[in-house]
Amino acid sequence: MINPIEDITEINQEKIINQIRCLGIDMIKEANSGHPGIVLGAAPILYTLYAHQLRYDSKDPNYFNRDRFVMSAGHGSALLYATLYMAGFPITLEDLKQFRQIDSITPGHPEYGVTPGVDCSTGPLGQGIATAVGLAMAEANLRTRYNGLIDHYTYVLCGDGDLMEGISYEACSLAGSLKLNKLIVLYDSNGICLDGKVSDSFNENISMRFISQGWNVITVEDGNNYELINQAIEEAKTSTENPTLIQVKTTIGKYSELEGTNKVHGTPLSEEDITKVKTKLGIRDIPFAISQNLLEEFAYIVEKRCSNIKEEWEEKLHSQSEEIQKEIEYFQNSDKSIKCTELFYDAPESKVESTRETSSKVLNSIIKGNPHILGGSADLFSTNKTYIKDAGNFQRENYLGQNIYFGVREHAMGAILNGLALHGFRSYGSTFLSFSDYLKPSLRLSAMMNLSNIFIFTHDSISVGEDGPTHQPVEQLLMLRSLPNLDVFRPADANEVIGSYKAIFEKSEGPSAITLARNNVPILEETKANEVEKGGYIALDPMKKPMGIVISSGEELHLVLEVAKRLRVKGIDIRVVSMPNLGRFLKQEDEYIENILPVEIRKIVVEASSSYSWNKLIYNSKYLITLDQYGASGKKEDVYRKFGFDIDSLEEKIENLLK
Amino acid sequence: MINPIEDITEINQEKIINQIRCLGIDMIKEANSGHPGIVLGAAPILYTLYAHQLRYDSKDPNYFNRDRFVMSAGHGSALLYATLYMAGFPITLEDLKQFRQIDSITPGHPEYGVTPGVDCSTGPLGQGIATAVGLAMAEANLRTRYNGLIDHYTYVLCGDGDLMEGISYEACSLAGSLKLNKLIVLYDSNGICLDGKVSDSFNENISMRFISQGWNVITVEDGNNYELINQAIEEAKTSTENPTLIQVKTTIGKYSELEGTNKVHGTPLSEEDITKVKTKLGIRDIPFAISQNLLEEFAYIVEKRCSNIKEEWEEKLHSQSEEIQKEIEYFQNSDKSIKCTELFYDAPESKVESTRETSSKVLNSIIKGNPHILGGSADLFSTNKTYIKDAGNFQRENYLGQNIYFGVREHAMGAILNGLALHGFRSYGSTFLSFSDYLKPSLRLSAMMNLSNIFIFTHDSISVGEDGPTHQPVEQLLMLRSLPNLDVFRPADANEVIGSYKAIFEKSEGPSAITLARNNVPILEETKANEVEKGGYIALDPMKKPMGIVISSGEELHLVLEVAKRLRVKGIDIRVVSMPNLGRFLKQEDEYIENILPVEIRKIVVEASSSYSWNKLIYNSKYLITLDQYGASGKKEDVYRKFGFDIDSLEEKIENLLK
Repeated sequence: MINPIEDITEINQEKIINQIRCLGIDMIKEANSGHPGIVLGAAPILYTLYAHQLRYDSKDPNYFNRDRFVMSAGHGSALLYATLYMAGFPITLEDLKQFRQIDSITPGHPEYGVTPGVDCSTGPLGQGIATAVGLAMAEANLRTRYNGLIDHYTYVLCGDGDLMEGISYEACSLAGSLKLNKLIVLYDSNGICLDGKVSDSFNENISMRFISQGWNVITVEDGNNYELINQAIEEAKTSTENPTLIQVKTTIGKYSELEGTNKVHGTPLSEEDITKVKTKLGIRDIPFAISQNLLEEFAYIVEKRCSNIKEEWEEKLHSQSEEIQKEIEYFQNSDKSIKCTELFYDAPESKVESTRETSSKVLNSIIKGNPHILGGSADLFSTNKTYIKDAGNFQRENYLGQNIYFGVREHAMGAILNGLALHGFRSYGSTFLSFSDYLKPSLRLSAMMNLSNIFIFTHDSISVGEDGPTHQPVEQLLMLRSLPNLDVFRPADANEVIGSYKAIFEKSEGPSAITLARNNVPILEETKANEVEKGGYIALDPMKKPMGIVISSGEELHLVLEVAKRLRVKGIDIRVVSMPNLGRFLKQEDEYIENILPVEIRKIVVEASSSYSWNKLIYNSKYLITLDQYGASGKKEDVYRKFGFDIDSLEEKIENLLK
Repeated sequence: MINPIEDITEINQEKIINQIRCLGIDMIKEANSGHPGIVLGAAPILYTLYAHQLRYDSKDPNYFNRDRFVMSAGHGSALLYATLYMAGFPITLEDLKQFRQIDSITPGHPEYGVTPGVDCSTGPLGQGIATAVGLAMAEANLRTRYNGLIDHYTYVLCGDGDLMEGISYEACSLAGSLKLNKLIVLYDSNGICLDGKVSDSFNENISMRFISQGWNVITVEDGNNYELINQAIEEAKTSTENPTLIQVKTTIGKYSELEGTNKVHGTPLSEEDITKVKTKLGIRDIPFAISQNLLEEFAYIVEKRCSNIKEEWEEKLHSQSEEIQKEIEYFQNSDKSIKCTELFYDAPESKVESTRETSSKVLNSIIKGNPHILGGSADLFSTNKTYIKDAGNFQRENYLGQNIYFGVREHAMGAILNGLALHGFRSYGSTFLSFSDYLKPSLRLSAMMNLSNIFIFTHDSISVGEDGPTHQPVEQLLMLRSLPNLDVFRPADANEVIGSYKAIFEKSEGPSAITLARNNVPILEETKANEVEKGGYIALDPMKKPMGIVISSGEELHLVLEVAKRLRVKGIDIRVVSMPNLGRFLKQEDEYIENILPVEIRKIVVEASSSYSWNKLIYNSKYLITLDQYGASGKKEDVYRKFGFDIDSLEEKIENLLK
């Protein structure tokens, strides 16, 4: 391979880097908001990537076999946008001037779907690097399946903050274990964090840490020297086994009078300082001054490497079988729906089954062998029941395996699902509902990026029993329901599990969560798979006008149906409404809602979960039989009784409320 | 120092260990639920700790200068309870038989405040080890301040799962940085996780990882040999600088026919297997058979080390000045109130101040020099404004410093606050509200353990502006409000900040959260510090009966008051209710609530946050001017306008709603 830099020594590459620096600090000055420290310090890294390493088509930022780049240090957005502009992406100078302005394509932190060339939303530290592990896993799978037709690197720029976050540790540990050799992380190591010197709180031997996790580590002592950075990346690319961390020693705010201090991290430079920086760098002291020459030179450099890569790849693609072409199309489509026509479910003879068990059967029938779905569990396969039989394990020896062993790393799992989805997969992950808290920050990003992940949470109430309050979710259902753009299902039995998964897999976009229970329950006559997509429906209705309506979900629906039978004997006829998806129900037309829950009939909710969810349907908290305290350890029946969710207590309460 | 083991070789210590093992598996069999694998594998570790190392008074489990022990692998509760029983803690055989039964003192996972001798609630993996870092930090502070009067070790038992969790990485990184040499972690390294071999997803060189973080690492190759374990702990105690990880190689489910497999992790042993184990171990095959002899021998071993340690310590304590004795009393009290009589607040001449700035002044006036308060920020001191001037930095050279630099480690911060509180401190931590998600699992444990932590979250709405949606909280206020036992304040201005902190510091127990805003706001005439403790109050009322009530909180209250002035000009008189603490308001007596929010007057809420919070007050969502979508990057004013929170839009909406 020719060293791409040797060939173009006549171009003053330093000048291009300095042009990027000055664009970045101008953008921040114009917005009067942003982070100049990383712009000045890390510009040589981004330049090197976009000029000499990343394989992309700036005219088609979504070209499928491009190298991926994740700006994990999302506060460096100005640097990213300035570089993308210089590299010829469809971003104008005007866009740069609109940095951090409302409805611009250059927001404060990189946003997926907003800016051409941004492969991932970043900002909350640690998320980017962990998501990149998911991208690299996706690539490893596709490269193996399609015999090298897909074959690219995943690059990350991260800072100290990213590496301090636990999620980055978790994800990098898994990446080392999985030997994702095409993952290359550039660590902008400037020794300064927001509050001062990194060493005040962070004294790790980073190199040793990464080696202990099965990574290569390369150090670039002078991060201002793009040739050294380029050499390090070339070296990283020779790795056939391990992912690589390149520790690039930089100076935060390089050339500013505040260089090397935390003062230059998050505040625009003064006008005087900008003038001084530009003078030092030989850039005209006019805001947003652009040298057409430098733009053309950047284009020339990229052209030499990347011209026709998209066309060449498409040629390769079209030489594949139609089946393969169709398979690959899915990864590029924004429509992520998977038709469930062949959904196969084998009900047990006993007609008794836990929803997690039904879930297992349904998942097996949909996922096994589908090349577009990957997922797994955070070390709870056997109890989440999300293992797909005969679908193989995703491991360093077998990237085709569909079952990912995430380890006890819920947070990394969340971000990795995002990475898989960003690469076009339908991805799913599972843990206990109680531990959904551990991955909430990644779940939020999934919803914000409108990815089509599926989050499977089992053990979804105090009915967990013996494991006690730490393992019994109370407020988590509300957390999920209140997350904008997350579609949340809580099925009551096998019928509703089927209905939920049908709705989930046939959706074209956006993340979904499904919560499942641990214990065996009967498969009900009253539930209807087809109604689940509407969110709520009448499960049981008396012949005459009901004297009250009880709304419930999940396991508690079974209790309520029992109560209804008992009350009927007493001459109290109630309607029972199953509400597997509150969010969807609230979006139904008024007529539908009024039909299910007529205004004039008294309504009660029974759910062993936070009352906040249900005030959306019922104002007077007196009619909410819900749970606003932590659970307890004991047999399921005893726990139910302690909190008034045994059938006797429910019967009494409901009867009294209807009086 | 005499090797404590040499002296008592005549006692068959193996038999005591086996007695603990058999008690544990009997408990799990009786409950038909639990985790036998760790009981059989790690019994020698717990035996060694309680017999030969931990300094405690089993008659007074809360003796203040005891060594702390945290069972981070909380699923090993049966092992812990059986050991505590054998060690003479006030736990009866009957209690062991009630393992995992409702309202017993032996719940499924260890619960602080429920079982004598349990220093911390554990179960969600990673939390225990991170909390222990907080305990060790507390000890370091007290040891330094009181010149060795307080001086003890903090021990942890953890498993692979704990070490896979990001929170443990974060906390251990800080512990190494702070050189907490009296922290000793025993790592039950059995190579098996719930889903199979740990190596399927976890291939770290643990030893190298911990060394890279500034720890000592000692390996015990035969974890079945208590003498080797004891020697390792003795060696760890010689460390004068670094915390120590002792990797104890064990066999999960030792002696069971399933030993060494994941099948023995979380399911009771069969009766046949129990018989076989007991036969192998020479223990009578009767459930809960206890050898009185072994009990006495355990007592004898402990007696030799620990008799009178409490009395001796109390003598030492009483020889101190009265002031010191009083100071130390606070750490032992459950009442954590701090009187705010001397709260000092210096309002700016401009009468304009951000709530985070007021918070800074109030915190400085209360915390500086108070030996009972420690806290800090997750690398956002300068923007959370939680740095206490002249109070020193908590660092390896200065454990007396009150300002803790947590680094970008929100999750570890949460757990460390728990550890500090468990040792008697009032502790506080700070980050952006958006990143409260990162520490939610620890916040939940704080609320569950009823600790008196203070969580300070700044940048509490879309008014963050330019940093964009990832940094703009929307659903987080609801998350906090819906967390059982968390007291949540959202003050609007300086007056309410003062009122909030007064209510928080003067509380005797339980955690609090306060959310603060970034931007400058006027100090209002309408707000009242004294009313904050009631949760909500009338800020503005017309002379005559109001034509409507608008409820608001935080920065949005200012917008609403502007609107009220404009409407007044139009002859529309409204009441404005400030609601800095929804949870407290809902707990007021009906009369108070009715007085503030009379049923017959139309009510509207204005808050740039999830509508779910406010359906508690208003059923019809039409009257909720709230935010159920993610924010946007832009100038604060532009972001407000985009989502209808500018004064013009609010005026129009409110006017229309009151028509």
